[in-house]
Amino acid sequence: MLHGDIGDWLERLGSAAPTPGGGAAAALAAAAGAGLVEMVVNLTVGKKAYAEHEDHVRPIGAQARELRLRALELAGDDEAAFSAVMSAYGLPKATDGEKAARAAAVEAATADAAQPPLRVAEVAARVIELASALPGRSNRNVLSDVGIAASLALSALESSAINVEVNLAGLRDPATRDGLRKEIDAHLAAATLGREVVANIRAGVAR
Amino acid sequence: MLHGDIGDWLERLGSAAPTPGGGAAAALAAAAGAGLVEMVVNLTVGKKAYAEHEDHVRPIGAQARELRLRALELAGDDEAAFSAVMSAYGLPKATDGEKAARAAAVEAATADAAQPPLRVAEVAARVIELASALPGRSNRNVLSDVGIAASLALSALESSAINVEVNLAGLRDPATRDGLRKEIDAHLAAATLGREVVANIRAGVAR
Repeated sequence: MLHGDIGDWLERLGSAAPTPGGGAAAALAAAAGAGLVEMVVNLTVGKKAYAEHEDHVRPIGAQARELRLRALELAGDDEAAFSAVMSAYGLPKATDGEKAARAAAVEAATADAAQPPLRVAEVAARVIELASALPGRSNRNVLSDVGIAASLALSALESSAINVEVNLAGLRDPATRDGLRKEIDAHLAAATLGREVVANIRAGVAR
Repeated sequence: MLHGDIGDWLERLGSAAPTPGGGAAAALAAAAGAGLVEMVVNLTVGKKAYAEHEDHVRPIGAQARELRLRALELAGDDEAAFSAVMSAYGLPKATDGEKAARAAAVEAATADAAQPPLRVAEVAARVIELASALPGRSNRNVLSDVGIAASLALSALESSAINVEVNLAGLRDPATRDGLRKEIDAHLAAATLGREVVANIRAGVAR
């Protein structure tokens, strides 16, 4: 779980310290996107003008809240997985036996390290879907925040894809590579919807 | 200046509380993008393999650091500006005189509230330019983080544009509107470069 002061965390992000890195930053963007969906629902539920949409938007808010907490957890998982890859690279490689053991450990840790960005991509895709279900049914005064939620989730999705693709390139086993490629492509399908949500809202708020 | 625990801040973001909202979330994404540019520079400077690029990348790191701190400051400014708009809307409107005074106060506060997202857009555009100057000259092992930096900055830029466009729509004076429109369009010009940086890096890391 990511925690601590925001400014301190960003200071560590900017430093040469091995973690946090881009994976944790992507998870934070997904968490912020989820938080904005949740906020829009909280500013819609209980308002007379949107009473007829209450049953539709309430579960969206509950899911967004779960996704926000999950993304924050994944930011921490990403840091731990990256540390495990670094440890594997640090194993001894003096003998042939050591070299083989090290290569196997690096391969396993690299495959494991693809999991947090894959899960962040999954969360980000869900945030995009939730955001897409709000326009026309949520508080009109915070429609711009739905657009920002979709934009941040899109960036979290794209950033996670970059990280999964880096891990793919480092893997030797073609079956593991193909499996990961298929998974990330499935999540990336939500990007088109995300871009539509952002474009429609920009066209709408500028009216 | 944005501060406090990350999880608590995201909890407030998700709540019905008037601030923080999308503007502060966009500023946070810009700060994370700047932090990643800074990190990549810190993992390049002092490394033998990149010694010839040290004079090129060092100032990029220093500028990214400044932009990170500036974005964090702007997140706080955005919250304050939004609160001022809410206060203006809360002014009495019983008499014609009060109505006129309230309308003028709302107009002035709305124009002021466009400033933080405009500045975030400016910061995000700068982060994109800095990120674009790294590939080929920065540590190859963290090229993916340059792509994530550009992606987060792009989202910060797009999100800020959404917020400026909302403010524009709420303004009565055409000259103020045109001026703000020109400014945000100038910053948005960096979006093309940002998309190029992300696409090139994705193509490169997937090799």
